[in-house]
Amino acid sequence: MNSFQFVNPTHIVFGEGTASQVGQLASKYGKTILLVYGSGSIKKTGLYDKTVGLLHEAGIKVHELPNIEPNPRLSTVNKGIDICRTEGVDFILAVGGGSVIDAAKAIAAGVLYEGDVWDFFTGKAVIGKALPLGTILTLAATGSEMNGNSVITNWEENLKRAFGSPYTYPKFSILDPTLTYTVPRNHTVNGAVDIMSHVFEQYFSLTENTPLQERFCESILQTVIENVEIALEQPEDAAARANLMWCGTMALNGGLISVGMTNDWASHGIEHEVSAIYDIPHGAGLAVIFPNWMKYVHEERIDRFVQFATRVWGVNAEGKTDNEIALEGIQATRDFFTRIGAESRLADFGIGSDKLDRMAEEAVRYGAIGSFKRLEQQDVKAILELSL
Amino acid sequence: MNSFQFVNPTHIVFGEGTASQVGQLASKYGKTILLVYGSGSIKKTGLYDKTVGLLHEAGIKVHELPNIEPNPRLSTVNKGIDICRTEGVDFILAVGGGSVIDAAKAIAAGVLYEGDVWDFFTGKAVIGKALPLGTILTLAATGSEMNGNSVITNWEENLKRAFGSPYTYPKFSILDPTLTYTVPRNHTVNGAVDIMSHVFEQYFSLTENTPLQERFCESILQTVIENVEIALEQPEDAAARANLMWCGTMALNGGLISVGMTNDWASHGIEHEVSAIYDIPHGAGLAVIFPNWMKYVHEERIDRFVQFATRVWGVNAEGKTDNEIALEGIQATRDFFTRIGAESRLADFGIGSDKLDRMAEEAVRYGAIGSFKRLEQQDVKAILELSL
Repeated sequence: MNSFQFVNPTHIVFGEGTASQVGQLASKYGKTILLVYGSGSIKKTGLYDKTVGLLHEAGIKVHELPNIEPNPRLSTVNKGIDICRTEGVDFILAVGGGSVIDAAKAIAAGVLYEGDVWDFFTGKAVIGKALPLGTILTLAATGSEMNGNSVITNWEENLKRAFGSPYTYPKFSILDPTLTYTVPRNHTVNGAVDIMSHVFEQYFSLTENTPLQERFCESILQTVIENVEIALEQPEDAAARANLMWCGTMALNGGLISVGMTNDWASHGIEHEVSAIYDIPHGAGLAVIFPNWMKYVHEERIDRFVQFATRVWGVNAEGKTDNEIALEGIQATRDFFTRIGAESRLADFGIGSDKLDRMAEEAVRYGAIGSFKRLEQQDVKAILELSL
Repeated sequence: MNSFQFVNPTHIVFGEGTASQVGQLASKYGKTILLVYGSGSIKKTGLYDKTVGLLHEAGIKVHELPNIEPNPRLSTVNKGIDICRTEGVDFILAVGGGSVIDAAKAIAAGVLYEGDVWDFFTGKAVIGKALPLGTILTLAATGSEMNGNSVITNWEENLKRAFGSPYTYPKFSILDPTLTYTVPRNHTVNGAVDIMSHVFEQYFSLTENTPLQERFCESILQTVIENVEIALEQPEDAAARANLMWCGTMALNGGLISVGMTNDWASHGIEHEVSAIYDIPHGAGLAVIFPNWMKYVHEERIDRFVQFATRVWGVNAEGKTDNEIALEGIQATRDFFTRIGAESRLADFGIGSDKLDRMAEEAVRYGAIGSFKRLEQQDVKAILELSL
């Protein structure tokens, strides 16, 4: 285990009906709010009307930024920054999934920065302050509700970049699993893949002596695997939805499950290059990339892949070589993604080989990526080729 | 899963050598510090001199409250409150194990309260503010370094009581596993029992549909079981000490591992009555009480005990009844405690049957205790009798 620091100040309010607390919670932080949301599904479900009503009741003035994209765009973030400055917004409320929350974080940091908010994503500047923000989560997936991370796409330049900051943790996040009952089937699938992928990025690590962290990772994986098919068959299964939601939050809540471990994040880096060009859903891209990353790197630390196969997938190790056990665990992962309805090839999105070189080049623009196995440009290209 | 709220603001600084950061961390919060510590082992190890030196270097004035008892006493807490008021202390630094931290929390809350600090333990008053406090942990056990709980003994009245408050979470806790290398053998044992007992109080719950929480609990139990014997055989095993320390913190960090679950805490209540009269170490008392509590209550929810036996202890379930499997798991717990050197009977501490009635009566003074099985006075007495 490496040395580490950990702190996570986000206040979680979890359970059916908790969205009714939004006025009371938000009024602790602001009087003039920017309400950030997506394509309008919250209008169909009534969550929009309810939220705005509760905010008004709490004496809060509400401005709006609708239509946040699934891969939220820099141009949209800049629109939000303008509104905040013009209207004197002092608190941002994100109502939606990870994309909406990520956009809200970027706006929160950008409002108080004189330069271009994109500087935070390129590393040209570091966030030193941000407007406070809160969230009402409507999708179990990214964990953005309990961390300081944001991923934004600069569509003009086909760049998808991330920041992580202690200043952009939500002050509160309302997690009402019943709000996920109406989530489209493919979003539930992609969310589950995203959760599992976040765990993979932390679990497949070269750091020694981290038994508790490894078990926490396995706990989340097992619980997602048990619950996602229930949620797909019975979208209003309260227990399955609650379990998935809490798994999503725990999988990436400031790194609690992997404290003291070197993380990898190469697969996310590769997927970001794919979706920066082709605008496919993040979880869908990960479902394609991750099993191929596993195949490409598993020999770096075969014991971790053997542990993964036996503990998470229940692979019977008897009479098999480590490599056989590991490959069986990887195949089980692939089969599971396929069984729940995730795509397995880039071709399923109409993506061919023509831009692989550009993606591979861009992925390593700051040098090799990943830590489980350091990936150079040719390694990234090889994983992309496996994924075609 | 029940609805819940969760927030834990404590900043954890974990790793070898991290105690050297104390001056920098403490100076964020105070200029005049009360340094709270125990019997003086920190003087033998040099931690005292090092800490005081670093605080002075940071321009901090240091007052002291030494000699915190293993079951910290109200009279000692009141001494600390007096010093804080007389000297204008604005930050409290606890250097030690759970007892020292618990005393620091009671002092922190008591200083800003006009009445008797004991009111917080009897429920006569609720904490509304407290001085900020920080900790340097020297024992893996109570989790007090990352929660708002405090347990104090009123020796004059033979009462041991607890409070939990959002205002008494440490601002920071420095967790340097190497500081536990010199912990006496029996403290390592009692600490491990304490950690496991904290998990038991949360894990044996009637709440349905909490698979992730249950697995987190099992993860801690398995990791403690794997590591404590290594630490006993090789007190300077860095990995074992680090794993035990992090298990202790995770086991009781504001309830993260059991969010949305009803907890029990009856065994702690019973043990508190024993140690309030006989002043035995908390962990030692728990090692006696807990397996007997398990025997007494396991039929309330046999499936949880079957899960415990099979997942944590690897009990082979084949051809056995649920009751046989459950009892095998309970016996494995008892055997493990004995194997690492914990006492199994109250008689081992010279405790006879003469005060069982008083302890049982006092345990249920506010009504039946526990939630896995509600325990009336006669139930508590029965568990104590099993423990003689």
